[in-house]
Amino acid sequence: MRAEIISIGDELLTGQKVNTNAAVICAELSGVGIAVERIIVCTDIEEAIIRQFADSLRRSELVLVTGGLGPTKDDRTRNAAAELLGASLVFHEETYRSSAERYRARGVEPSPGLRDNAMVIEGASVIANSRGLAPGMIIPAGSAFDHHYLVLMPGVPSEMEAMMQETVIPWCSGFSDQVIVHSHIMTSGVGETTVERKIAGIEESLPGGTSIAYLPHQAGVSLRVSSVGADRSGVERENRQVVDAICREAAEYIYATREATLEEVVGELLAAEGLTVATAESCTGGLVASRLTDVAGSSQYFQRGYVVYSNEAKQQVLGVGKEQLAAHGAVSEVVAAAMARGCLLESGADIAVSTTGIAGPGGGSSEKPVGMVCLGLARRDADGNVREVTSVFRSHGDRSRNKYRFSEACLRMLWQELT
Amino acid sequence: MRAEIISIGDELLTGQKVNTNAAVICAELSGVGIAVERIIVCTDIEEAIIRQFADSLRRSELVLVTGGLGPTKDDRTRNAAAELLGASLVFHEETYRSSAERYRARGVEPSPGLRDNAMVIEGASVIANSRGLAPGMIIPAGSAFDHHYLVLMPGVPSEMEAMMQETVIPWCSGFSDQVIVHSHIMTSGVGETTVERKIAGIEESLPGGTSIAYLPHQAGVSLRVSSVGADRSGVERENRQVVDAICREAAEYIYATREATLEEVVGELLAAEGLTVATAESCTGGLVASRLTDVAGSSQYFQRGYVVYSNEAKQQVLGVGKEQLAAHGAVSEVVAAAMARGCLLESGADIAVSTTGIAGPGGGSSEKPVGMVCLGLARRDADGNVREVTSVFRSHGDRSRNKYRFSEACLRMLWQELT
Repeated sequence: MRAEIISIGDELLTGQKVNTNAAVICAELSGVGIAVERIIVCTDIEEAIIRQFADSLRRSELVLVTGGLGPTKDDRTRNAAAELLGASLVFHEETYRSSAERYRARGVEPSPGLRDNAMVIEGASVIANSRGLAPGMIIPAGSAFDHHYLVLMPGVPSEMEAMMQETVIPWCSGFSDQVIVHSHIMTSGVGETTVERKIAGIEESLPGGTSIAYLPHQAGVSLRVSSVGADRSGVERENRQVVDAICREAAEYIYATREATLEEVVGELLAAEGLTVATAESCTGGLVASRLTDVAGSSQYFQRGYVVYSNEAKQQVLGVGKEQLAAHGAVSEVVAAAMARGCLLESGADIAVSTTGIAGPGGGSSEKPVGMVCLGLARRDADGNVREVTSVFRSHGDRSRNKYRFSEACLRMLWQELT
Repeated sequence: MRAEIISIGDELLTGQKVNTNAAVICAELSGVGIAVERIIVCTDIEEAIIRQFADSLRRSELVLVTGGLGPTKDDRTRNAAAELLGASLVFHEETYRSSAERYRARGVEPSPGLRDNAMVIEGASVIANSRGLAPGMIIPAGSAFDHHYLVLMPGVPSEMEAMMQETVIPWCSGFSDQVIVHSHIMTSGVGETTVERKIAGIEESLPGGTSIAYLPHQAGVSLRVSSVGADRSGVERENRQVVDAICREAAEYIYATREATLEEVVGELLAAEGLTVATAESCTGGLVASRLTDVAGSSQYFQRGYVVYSNEAKQQVLGVGKEQLAAHGAVSEVVAAAMARGCLLESGADIAVSTTGIAGPGGGSSEKPVGMVCLGLARRDADGNVREVTSVFRSHGDRSRNKYRFSEACLRMLWQELT
């Protein structure tokens, strides 16, 4: 079944609003095995809407529309549909009653506008609006459009989402006999090109119903493996086989085979082992601690962190040696190790991680260029001795990108320590 | 001039990704007086891309495309364009050289894929990619399409945005003979509806050539005032008058009348007064420190920060009283003040700020609900006495939104102290 989405509203064409509605509708539809082929953002002008409805209804069985439904004068969706389909508007008693009740519940007298709000397209089944006033409609477009369907919903996200979940999705699920299965493979510290080279062989011999999408993110790329077919068990098997093959080829970069952030995975590992972590950050300025605490429940394994931006702070807070700083410089593995050790002892945590580097744009030199970071990890062994690991990582972005990648490399070091 | 945008990628059709790129392009184009008439999201299938390119090029002078450009197998945009226009691909030496340099800079040998990456459409002017590998292209579509233009850019937001600002917008501005002046008004701690209400009168009586765009961001909304006309001095005057009027109406929310982040403005104020700041964070987990250090040169006024997530850390690191915690709870103005004072004394900074609150989803109660944060600020007076200020702020988002808004409220408190 072909579906497309039409989002109506000039605010989407001026950059004032981002089209989140379309993403929500796509996700909901893919859940019932209906793939969206196209999303169109269209202006508020009635003629343009009519033309777009006609184009879309000709080629797609299911056309879902958001926006331009409502009491204000720049809401032209309903009229455009009536005009195109040569349908008249009829008064919908129940819509009027429920909207009038909403008003009275707030102690307000129903405005005359409510009668117009309750006018719906003849022959449409009305979608009740549990969050607002404007009714939605499922409209059979008739023989002129091969009996395709036009579904109208308001542009207010909460109203649209409620209509999708309460009415449209249950109705849609009657149409599809296809099963779609998506799997996610999250990688860190590797670019699109490298991943692509690693799994080129797999991509060349993909089973017919399966495809791989590359989804780049701030610190790398994640993969989505999608499989489509008639019977669920077959589709799931096919999907799993491809996922397993990718995991074999690119194991060292893969931290999860589900949608999850690196900080979430690290947090689960810490919680599972009953370990605590503390942070000592220079160039990342608190970003590592912030990412660790982005995870709900992180207080279980994260209790404190230090942002030691100046050399003085590194000495006073973490006991880094003045001579170490003088001999090796703040950006050095020696200082990274000292920061981690100091953080471990000071905090009493089981593991401590540290970052010291040059985010840029200034401060670089030939042997210590912008984008270079030294990472440290200190851990108390069973016998109470403190063991230290250090590493050096290079990033090649602007300041904020470097900062983020430094924090990713630090979390990756922690992840490797835990696995 | 008619412009439309084609966003390519199945991840946009499965709800995997929200199409933020299109919104950015729309905002940028409206900046040079070009209105976008349509946005289309199209699948990765080459035939579908070719058909969409043909449709769009027929009706629009300017067709901007994002996505499907890059070294991987699901990137079909370049081939689709070549196929449609009957153009061949030619090797672009400079693209290859700069991408190879990127590799060498990382000590990696250029992969064979880089040669393919440097193949561009014959007759296109190449858009250098300052943030990544795949080159963009401005392609004259020839007489078959009334000499309209096809502009190809990668889907990675940072790469696309850099190309827009560095190359495409300067090129586009050549199409318009009008003078366009933009002003930015940055607000913090206020929503779109409140701002709208505040300046409703101004919007109703806007001079003809001037428009106001609402650009929502993570912690509020910023305004862009755009004025278009024939003569520069008149356009600038008109623009300035509207900006001044808005500043009068919404003064308390406005921290800058140019594009700048709150942390940048706070940093400039600190630097100008030669003051240093330290941070003591609980619920924000290091985000305040991280935002302060997002600004290049922040080491001038920021030397250290403490992330004290647990009560124990609040006591041991900042000397918060056990009885204070017991009597008032960690989320209280008393503890926020004690954290700020302890941070001030411990760090020796001129000003210290603190955050303690409930980001959620758990941990809320009726008198201390999720989204509540207590903020503290301590400052050493001329006579050496420590003065403390506290405040309470409420946010109504999910965990990450609350965290960000808490950090924004903390920076706002610091900003108010400095102005």
